[in-house]
Amino acid sequence: MKQIYFFAEGNRDMRALLGGKGANLAEMTGLGLPVPSGFTVTTDACHQYQTNNNNMTSQLEEELKDALQHLEEQTGKLFDNTANPLLVSVRSGAAISMPGMMDTILNLGLNDQTVLGLAKQTNNERFAWDCYRRLLQMFGNVVFGIPEKTFDNEMTKLKQAKHYQSDLELTTADLKQLAQQFKALYTATEHKAFPQNPHEQLQLAVDAVFSSWQNNRAKVYRKLHGIPETLGTAVNVQMMAFGNSGQDSGTGVAFTRNPVTGEAKLFGEFLKNAQGEDVVSGLRTPQPIHELADSDPEIYQQFVDSVQELENHYRDMQDVEFTIEHGKLYFLQTRNGKRTPKAAVQIAVDLVEEGKISEAEALMRVDPEQITQLLHPEFAVDDLKGKAALAKGLPASPGAASGQIYFTAASAKAAHEAGHQVVLVRQDTSPEDIEGMVVSEAIVTSRGGMTSHAAVVARGMGKCGVVGCAAITIESDKSVKIGEQTFHEGDNLSVDGTTGKLYAGILSTTKAAQDPNLQKFLQWAQKNGNVDVFANADTPADFEQALRFGAKGIGLTRTEHMFFKSERLFQMRRLIIARTADDRIDPLNKLREMQQKDFVALYRLAEGKNVTIRLLDPPLHEFLPHDEVELKEVATAMNVSVDKLRNRVAELKEVNPMLGHRGCRLAVTYPDIYEMQVTAIANAALQVRSEGINVKPHIMIPLIGSLVEMRWVKDRLVAKLNEVFATTKQPLHYQIGTMIEMPRACLVADQIAQEADFFSFGTNDLTQLTYGFSRDDSGSFLPDYIEKGLLPADPFKSLDQEGVGALMKMAVNGGRKEKRSLPIGVCGELGGDPESIKFFDAIGIDYVSCSPYRVPVAVLASAQAAINRRHQPSFAKSTPTTH
Amino acid sequence: MKQIYFFAEGNRDMRALLGGKGANLAEMTGLGLPVPSGFTVTTDACHQYQTNNNNMTSQLEEELKDALQHLEEQTGKLFDNTANPLLVSVRSGAAISMPGMMDTILNLGLNDQTVLGLAKQTNNERFAWDCYRRLLQMFGNVVFGIPEKTFDNEMTKLKQAKHYQSDLELTTADLKQLAQQFKALYTATEHKAFPQNPHEQLQLAVDAVFSSWQNNRAKVYRKLHGIPETLGTAVNVQMMAFGNSGQDSGTGVAFTRNPVTGEAKLFGEFLKNAQGEDVVSGLRTPQPIHELADSDPEIYQQFVDSVQELENHYRDMQDVEFTIEHGKLYFLQTRNGKRTPKAAVQIAVDLVEEGKISEAEALMRVDPEQITQLLHPEFAVDDLKGKAALAKGLPASPGAASGQIYFTAASAKAAHEAGHQVVLVRQDTSPEDIEGMVVSEAIVTSRGGMTSHAAVVARGMGKCGVVGCAAITIESDKSVKIGEQTFHEGDNLSVDGTTGKLYAGILSTTKAAQDPNLQKFLQWAQKNGNVDVFANADTPADFEQALRFGAKGIGLTRTEHMFFKSERLFQMRRLIIARTADDRIDPLNKLREMQQKDFVALYRLAEGKNVTIRLLDPPLHEFLPHDEVELKEVATAMNVSVDKLRNRVAELKEVNPMLGHRGCRLAVTYPDIYEMQVTAIANAALQVRSEGINVKPHIMIPLIGSLVEMRWVKDRLVAKLNEVFATTKQPLHYQIGTMIEMPRACLVADQIAQEADFFSFGTNDLTQLTYGFSRDDSGSFLPDYIEKGLLPADPFKSLDQEGVGALMKMAVNGGRKEKRSLPIGVCGELGGDPESIKFFDAIGIDYVSCSPYRVPVAVLASAQAAINRRHQPSFAKSTPTTH
Repeated sequence: MKQIYFFAEGNRDMRALLGGKGANLAEMTGLGLPVPSGFTVTTDACHQYQTNNNNMTSQLEEELKDALQHLEEQTGKLFDNTANPLLVSVRSGAAISMPGMMDTILNLGLNDQTVLGLAKQTNNERFAWDCYRRLLQMFGNVVFGIPEKTFDNEMTKLKQAKHYQSDLELTTADLKQLAQQFKALYTATEHKAFPQNPHEQLQLAVDAVFSSWQNNRAKVYRKLHGIPETLGTAVNVQMMAFGNSGQDSGTGVAFTRNPVTGEAKLFGEFLKNAQGEDVVSGLRTPQPIHELADSDPEIYQQFVDSVQELENHYRDMQDVEFTIEHGKLYFLQTRNGKRTPKAAVQIAVDLVEEGKISEAEALMRVDPEQITQLLHPEFAVDDLKGKAALAKGLPASPGAASGQIYFTAASAKAAHEAGHQVVLVRQDTSPEDIEGMVVSEAIVTSRGGMTSHAAVVARGMGKCGVVGCAAITIESDKSVKIGEQTFHEGDNLSVDGTTGKLYAGILSTTKAAQDPNLQKFLQWAQKNGNVDVFANADTPADFEQALRFGAKGIGLTRTEHMFFKSERLFQMRRLIIARTADDRIDPLNKLREMQQKDFVALYRLAEGKNVTIRLLDPPLHEFLPHDEVELKEVATAMNVSVDKLRNRVAELKEVNPMLGHRGCRLAVTYPDIYEMQVTAIANAALQVRSEGINVKPHIMIPLIGSLVEMRWVKDRLVAKLNEVFATTKQPLHYQIGTMIEMPRACLVADQIAQEADFFSFGTNDLTQLTYGFSRDDSGSFLPDYIEKGLLPADPFKSLDQEGVGALMKMAVNGGRKEKRSLPIGVCGELGGDPESIKFFDAIGIDYVSCSPYRVPVAVLASAQAAINRRHQPSFAKSTPTTH
Repeated sequence: MKQIYFFAEGNRDMRALLGGKGANLAEMTGLGLPVPSGFTVTTDACHQYQTNNNNMTSQLEEELKDALQHLEEQTGKLFDNTANPLLVSVRSGAAISMPGMMDTILNLGLNDQTVLGLAKQTNNERFAWDCYRRLLQMFGNVVFGIPEKTFDNEMTKLKQAKHYQSDLELTTADLKQLAQQFKALYTATEHKAFPQNPHEQLQLAVDAVFSSWQNNRAKVYRKLHGIPETLGTAVNVQMMAFGNSGQDSGTGVAFTRNPVTGEAKLFGEFLKNAQGEDVVSGLRTPQPIHELADSDPEIYQQFVDSVQELENHYRDMQDVEFTIEHGKLYFLQTRNGKRTPKAAVQIAVDLVEEGKISEAEALMRVDPEQITQLLHPEFAVDDLKGKAALAKGLPASPGAASGQIYFTAASAKAAHEAGHQVVLVRQDTSPEDIEGMVVSEAIVTSRGGMTSHAAVVARGMGKCGVVGCAAITIESDKSVKIGEQTFHEGDNLSVDGTTGKLYAGILSTTKAAQDPNLQKFLQWAQKNGNVDVFANADTPADFEQALRFGAKGIGLTRTEHMFFKSERLFQMRRLIIARTADDRIDPLNKLREMQQKDFVALYRLAEGKNVTIRLLDPPLHEFLPHDEVELKEVATAMNVSVDKLRNRVAELKEVNPMLGHRGCRLAVTYPDIYEMQVTAIANAALQVRSEGINVKPHIMIPLIGSLVEMRWVKDRLVAKLNEVFATTKQPLHYQIGTMIEMPRACLVADQIAQEADFFSFGTNDLTQLTYGFSRDDSGSFLPDYIEKGLLPADPFKSLDQEGVGALMKMAVNGGRKEKRSLPIGVCGELGGDPESIKFFDAIGIDYVSCSPYRVPVAVLASAQAAINRRHQPSFAKSTPTTH
């Protein structure tokens, strides 16, 4: 298999082989857009390199020689030639975009001789030496691992000595001197000379890119984004186009739509007389792209037309890099642009309305996890009232967050691990800062634009971010000035990524307002999904929120949460310490009245939607006080002796409460508690129906393990319900179902289905029991397991499809064997996890129930699962676009 | 379907329809043996009765009328006729024998008129009135529920007034008076007159028998013996034969072999001039059967020949009831006789050696649970030395036990529930006493013979029992005299059921000697079983015992048990509180040396048999002290601060330790512990091999839930083993297997099998997780569940085949899919449960491992499972014989 492809030989479908960047360069070349000539060394070559003990194969060495020769022919330039030197860029590019993680070398081909030729040829000695010193910097950093800072320090010293403000003030002589100093750094720090032979430079550069796949930053990024280690990277070798050739040159980055808001308007920045790294690094603040129209309207028009063509061709918002060399436009890269969740939804909706993509395609364009970010908090209006902002920067990534400020990734990480909420404040960020960014609530930089590293990464991570905030001066690793005020490490700062404003102290946050685009988008999702989404709601407030987010009803009300309010807790405790049946009557009556009110409120909101109420689940000792102080207080309040209360606590104590006397087992011992609850349910239902509101009570029995148990409990509930409904002429329709959360329930689901009107998986307990992991205790070993690769993920966050999933499949098959259309749901926490929902869709689950804020995520995940299943494999390629 | 069969119409294969008694009466009739004419009302009629709201169907009423008419024709006697009155017995009889549990009425057909006719006909007025007063007693008790005691009191009062010692002294006038008094009791207590119409008597009697199926005693017995409620009972109506017709009459019970020892010699008792109830109730002490040869040699010979014919016909020891009326022998019942475990084995072995049954049949004749009773303790010789017995009774049921004496079933039950070991001492026992007998360690009566209720039930339950101990006088409900000594409720008594002797106080017990018959029997079992039996043994003593009982090796050594000895516990604690890797080295080395010695001892005993060692399983906090006092002691001993130790205890505390940081999860966090253990295993193996002894180490990893986990742990163990074995030229063969105890392990068993040399099910944990039941906590609800019929049995005692069993099947199939001949065992407690072993045999389990004393039980259960599978259904009928 050949290991090198020229751009003209490839296309965008060859992403796996050519990497994203290479495939898109090939595609642009095919479209006839101005792309500097070049070729791609394939990801396959990367594998060969790795299996060849991290050495280039002789095949690759051969092909590389041939490719260079061909490139010389194409460009009419020659490698290692002083008269017309061929200079190239070398860039990595994996199949999945990993911005900033991999390394770039520009101006490769320059040496002590060709730099003179370039000077002569361009008639611009300063330009030539500027290119050379850049090569020396990048090459030294990427190939020999000399820290960037070492080179920067030399340059800063020189600039300070000469009182220069900007790099542009450096003279040819300064640059010559820097080149000498940089070469000296090679021998001083690495005891190696800068290789003068361009062929050797290229070989070493390709080597370095292949090796860099294994560097730590890359590994952290891949781990964070779930990118497989085996993918490998390609290397793109391309004739240089020089944005730093003079004032008729420049370079920039642009998005065909606004990546923050999604607005359908070209959005970008450019820098005159600069190379790409100057824009990306954020060291100089660039001009908005529309200003190019003023300075060079013709180029601007060509640019606008080209990127529109690209967007139409790719049918998605494009992120392009371009360079202008002496008034000639070149495209160096195009890709589907990263975007904020808000922009992702806006763009997806707009593209549908522009007739460019279908609704189903639009739904595949947004990562369900991003949706939560749309629901992210904003600062409370009351807190902001009269509050002056400390400073304002660029609103790089929306949302609002407060935390303690730290100035290095390491100190941020340490503070996070110590349990603090952290805001990372830096001059600019680089890939070395990734781990510090991961743990921060917000990211703030004093320099850089909307496309700087900090901005791109913050948006990708959904962190709130403000960049280019010039009012910030980093004074040391321990303090910073914002405006006139000094802040020290650990001081509180509030960051509004939507407005770009910074505030001193901690501000409280409120939920984000609803976005009409999101509403529209979610309606499409509702239409497309097979798995319905209900909410876990214990209070009317929860339920209202969930309904606004499109929940189809309540899939889980945990009645025990209702017992923890103080007056109720008191009655619950009276019930628990009662020794005779008589003593139980009064607290049961009181609890019944209170529960009835709870249910009335939920039914009114539901207006005929399902309200699924789970009967008491936790062991009774959870309701009793556990320390001596509280014990005394409660005993006094209840008018019983401390000893009596202490004895009851001791009596109820369990070795493994998870596996103890709880759920329906309580009903077997104390049938009156469930009877009280269903009486409240029935009374509430009748009351609300009498108000002309439709009512659908679903009663759910927890912890069922066998048919006889289900039947025993259910029979008693039905008897009680019949008692209540005997008073009405129109009996009320209700359902009695069961949680499926014991492995045994999955194994005998066919039997249990005889008595169950519905099933609802409790994935937390089911996971605990299937693995034998206690959630409460797994903290002592689960992190070790994930760290050591013994678990792919925390099974409480993403379904263990192989183990727990296998039991679920059995239960679904068993249940439906008995009752063909048995409704089956999931009401554990995994009900809101997109990967898990995909599995639930596949095994025929009817609905999930999750916390209100996960409802929109689940709705979208459900739609994507269904679309994926219907259209595979045609959409498979589209999914990575929003990563 | 007809509801009544005459004896001549049935045979022994109609057990389900006719009940055991009816089927055998029919069979005897078919064999031409002298059986009084009669018929059986079927168990089907009993069902009809129940579904007809506990009323006889009109069909049954019709058939009963016809049958009576036919019986009159057969016998030439007439119902309700004074000249030649037909009198019948009415007896219940279910398909499975339930001795004494159901009720009997004799002499039915007598009334104020026919009693006169009977007197005239037999020319024996006293006899006639004696029959009448018996009918009045039994009918009153069975049909109207008047307590037996009420009648007994009247009789006792009369006897006392007249200074009679025996019932035989009652005159005709006395008996007439008693009949009057008894009839008066009917009206006084029940406000109903005794029905004079014999047809009405019969209807009411059949009614009563059908109802009595539902009485409490019957329910307790069925629950105790696992007899299904749905079986129902038949009713046998049979012409009376009068053993109480005079001195040429009598009645008795006999076994064709000795039911206590198994000796092949007729064994029985008879009473002259008595009805059957006199023998069974134990109120009079009967003569040995061989004395019949003296008084009536002809009858005796006929009897001996007949019962031999019966034994040959049934191919098993028979338990027969007979009556002699005026020198004519009648058989009233035959059935396979109940026997002690010792007798069961002896008889089974003898029958094989007599060529009457095959080895396989013999194996089916002994209930595996009975085997444990053969291994039951005897009193320690040292304790008996110089100790005088208080008294000696009949050795009714072998074994030895001590406990506190109680004189009523209720007080025995209460004392048992309060946690005491109880010995029940009574004049005699009746079905009312069943619950008290169940909870007692031993049963002692002052009256009755070897076939009395107390004796039969004690043997059936495998309780140690002494009956007919005349030296005992029950003085009240609270005290008793044994010889001259008075004992009060709660005093200690020791009972030797093998010798019949009673001793004051508590005696220590030793294990029973080995019985050569048992050895032979178990060798047959070993040959026949498919499931091999290994032992759970943590010490050489355990292992020696197990080897004597035929264990094939060790299936489970729990290494943690070895850590609880004080010097080891100290090192274990040092290891746990160590904070650095260095601090761990010394305790690990010390533990390694100690473990190595443990393993050397086991390997030496094993002589090449498998020794399966499970690596550390429990969570570390189990090794630390938990109360303050111990905490201080340990801190001092370890030379650490109490605070440090307390903190470590707190750190390791878990909410649900069952599901916590234990098993192989410890190895992931602290690999050095398992590495230490396998080093000890390997060193020990090399040491013992160097002594010329073959060694087979099997290393078992607990709590595995996935392939990656298994691989991770195993790789580290193998590396360590290779390190040790690197020192030897002949590498040692070893196996590394895994416990299968997490539901997940069952679901992914095919994967785990890639790395496992063997599987061993941990049924305790697997049951806990499948049900979500903590064994430690299930005491608060499991009894409720069993009581309310929500669980058929305690799933920790008998495998839940439907749930846990389904997972096991998956694991077996999965494991064998990957490795066709993967050895699979069970080493949980269910490994010694016969019912569970049957299931294990069926799903292809290779071996079980159980505690040493369960080994013989498991060996027999394994053989029976295999035989059952091979020969079904031909042996199905034989299985109930030993119940």
